[in-house]
Amino acid sequence: ALPSSPGTASALRSSPSPRTSFPSLASLCFFSAGIEFRFREVPVGGAALDSTGVPLPDETLAAAKESDAVLLGAIGGYKWDANEKHLKPETGLLQLRAGLGVFANLRPATVLPQLVDSSTLKKEVAEGVDIMVVRELTGGIYFGKPRGFGSNDRGEDIGFNTEVYSASEIDRIARVAFEVARKRHGKLCSVDKANVLEASMLWRKRVNGLASEFPDVELSHMYVDNAAMQLIRNPKQFDTIVTNNIFGDILSDEASMLTGSIGMLPSASIGDLGPGLFEPIHGSAPDIAGQDKANPLATVLSAAMLLRYGLGEEEAAKRIEAAVINTLNRGFRTGDIFSGGTTLVGCKQMGEEVLRSV
Amino acid sequence: ALPSSPGTASALRSSPSPRTSFPSLASLCFFSAGIEFRFREVPVGGAALDSTGVPLPDETLAAAKESDAVLLGAIGGYKWDANEKHLKPETGLLQLRAGLGVFANLRPATVLPQLVDSSTLKKEVAEGVDIMVVRELTGGIYFGKPRGFGSNDRGEDIGFNTEVYSASEIDRIARVAFEVARKRHGKLCSVDKANVLEASMLWRKRVNGLASEFPDVELSHMYVDNAAMQLIRNPKQFDTIVTNNIFGDILSDEASMLTGSIGMLPSASIGDLGPGLFEPIHGSAPDIAGQDKANPLATVLSAAMLLRYGLGEEEAAKRIEAAVINTLNRGFRTGDIFSGGTTLVGCKQMGEEVLRSV
Ligand SMILES: CC(C)[C@H](C(=O)O)[C@@H](O)C(=O)O
Ligand SMILES: CC(C)[C@H](C(=O)O)[C@@H](O)C(=O)O
Repeated sequence: ALPSSPGTASALRSSPSPRTSFPSLASLCFFSAGIEFRFREVPVGGAALDSTGVPLPDETLAAAKESDAVLLGAIGGYKWDANEKHLKPETGLLQLRAGLGVFANLRPATVLPQLVDSSTLKKEVAEGVDIMVVRELTGGIYFGKPRGFGSNDRGEDIGFNTEVYSASEIDRIARVAFEVARKRHGKLCSVDKANVLEASMLWRKRVNGLASEFPDVELSHMYVDNAAMQLIRNPKQFDTIVTNNIFGDILSDEASMLTGSIGMLPSASIGDLGPGLFEPIHGSAPDIAGQDKANPLATVLSAAMLLRYGLGEEEAAKRIEAAVINTLNRGFRTGDIFSGGTTLVGCKQMGEEVLRSV
Repeated sequence: ALPSSPGTASALRSSPSPRTSFPSLASLCFFSAGIEFRFREVPVGGAALDSTGVPLPDETLAAAKESDAVLLGAIGGYKWDANEKHLKPETGLLQLRAGLGVFANLRPATVLPQLVDSSTLKKEVAEGVDIMVVRELTGGIYFGKPRGFGSNDRGEDIGFNTEVYSASEIDRIARVAFEVARKRHGKLCSVDKANVLEASMLWRKRVNGLASEFPDVELSHMYVDNAAMQLIRNPKQFDTIVTNNIFGDILSDEASMLTGSIGMLPSASIGDLGPGLFEPIHGSAPDIAGQDKANPLATVLSAAMLLRYGLGEEEAAKRIEAAVINTLNRGFRTGDIFSGGTTLVGCKQMGEEVLRSV
């Protein structure tokens, strides 16, 4: 792989078929910023299970590591739902995150003025919401050991997992979150369950320990149950949220649904070294696969995050984001964000309208 | 303690001072159903820490066990926030739940027509929401071992907890949930993270294994991140939800906030034997302690649940619930549920108005 620009975006093919057509994405970048891309498409998840029998083939991980950035389609589908753990599409995604060391997952939940009516929240509660959830992505209960099945002292079946964090794992994600908050509105809320869990007590202690390095950031703490409530009661109180892997999984999905347009939301996962991983936060929506109904904008916006955080091409990122806004302003909507007075389009046409809006 | 009626409700005093005056509660029950109560008030949480140095004194647990039902005030406060784990008020509550063996926590989230405007959700999304969350309360990551602090192979500090469920723990909570669903609208949604966690895989397997015993209940499964979204997108899709301790903590608080009136919501925790534990789902709200502002209705409605599930006094339970509705219909509101055109009252007056409404 060539270093940095001209970038090599390794496009991982997952299941069902990707929501964005990569050639159009390529032309988009080409026209908007004069950057040249080399794409490599490799399978992961269901596609990899079908073609190779494992959810993350060695070749796929190697190709991802050699690239300058990785764009990922959504993972999972009915076909593999009953698979054993090591043969689940999700396992491939977790292995990829771990393999790339992308410990910091940035998940914006922003209510766009054009889409405020798609939210199930009252307009005055939803408008202006602009939250960034910084989720720890390669530790905690997702990866902790021991884990598995066994039996207890009464001979009964048990299933178990370990929630574990080390000081350095907490420090590195907290630093990313402080930096992100500093570039946003300077407010960081760390979410834990420190009134019950030792892993959370250490989390809170380490986050507090870093606060003095970021005197310009206002740090607060909140229990996860309260955070789940406050996101609904008054989401505008939040700027940047930092939390562990499992709480981040739950809260970032909750936050994204506040916007009413989960089909719009991208994410970036970054590590200390190596390529970042960029993916829509939505799932693979197997119920509408192949029907040309899916909203491609989360993937398009993930490509923008890829340009910004993965390749340092801020200008190109901004042009893609502006093209998306422009497309919405021109009234185009897929079914998930459709409302009266706008124009309903399919996945393909939405992609074309974005290209036309550049 | 005398068996069943005349009942002995052991009223655990926690911190700050209880929101309901127990004498009024006593008179309420007396007048409404001719039942005679003997009350014993014993400290737990902050109150117990202050008076005895531990969050659950042996005498308190013994008194609770001897009673026919236990009504609990809310737990926690700034004063004890920095305490070590074994000296936290919350630890007293967890010890009490475990000590009483109350493994099934029933948390209704119902939008009352009188209060639909208090919800931050759009009226058409909120109205008619009526969800019962059945949360496993004495297992999972709250109690799993090993837990604690240590160091990893690089000598770094770590904090760790164990999420563990056994077959029988899952079966008994699932049975309660199936029974509850059967008496409601016959729909049960089991929430887990079976695409990642072994503890959840066993959970799903055992729940599925019981389905054939409840052919009249429609069982579905949902991942916890999706559930956090669906509760906001379309809460009316849910009837009864069953889930583990930590997911239940998060989702029941999220569900309660949909109603816009968390100060209204009671909960019941029951086991196989011994007294049940009844408590409001809200916290102790230390920010408004002593200001006569708190909404006492969640505690009043917890007393109704105590009568229904703890003492089998259905008629008395219904009369309390009707008195609460009547009070709302007469326009009385505490600050948390106040809206234009209603009458703002304090905690004390609200209690008196309920008495007057019987
Ligand atoms: C598919 C699943 C393993 C994944 C996760 O839980 O991390 C997904 O929900 C996400 O949030 O990216
Ligand atoms: C106070 C705390 C330990 C408790 C819990 O997490 O169970 C509370 O949040 C609840 O839901 O009753």
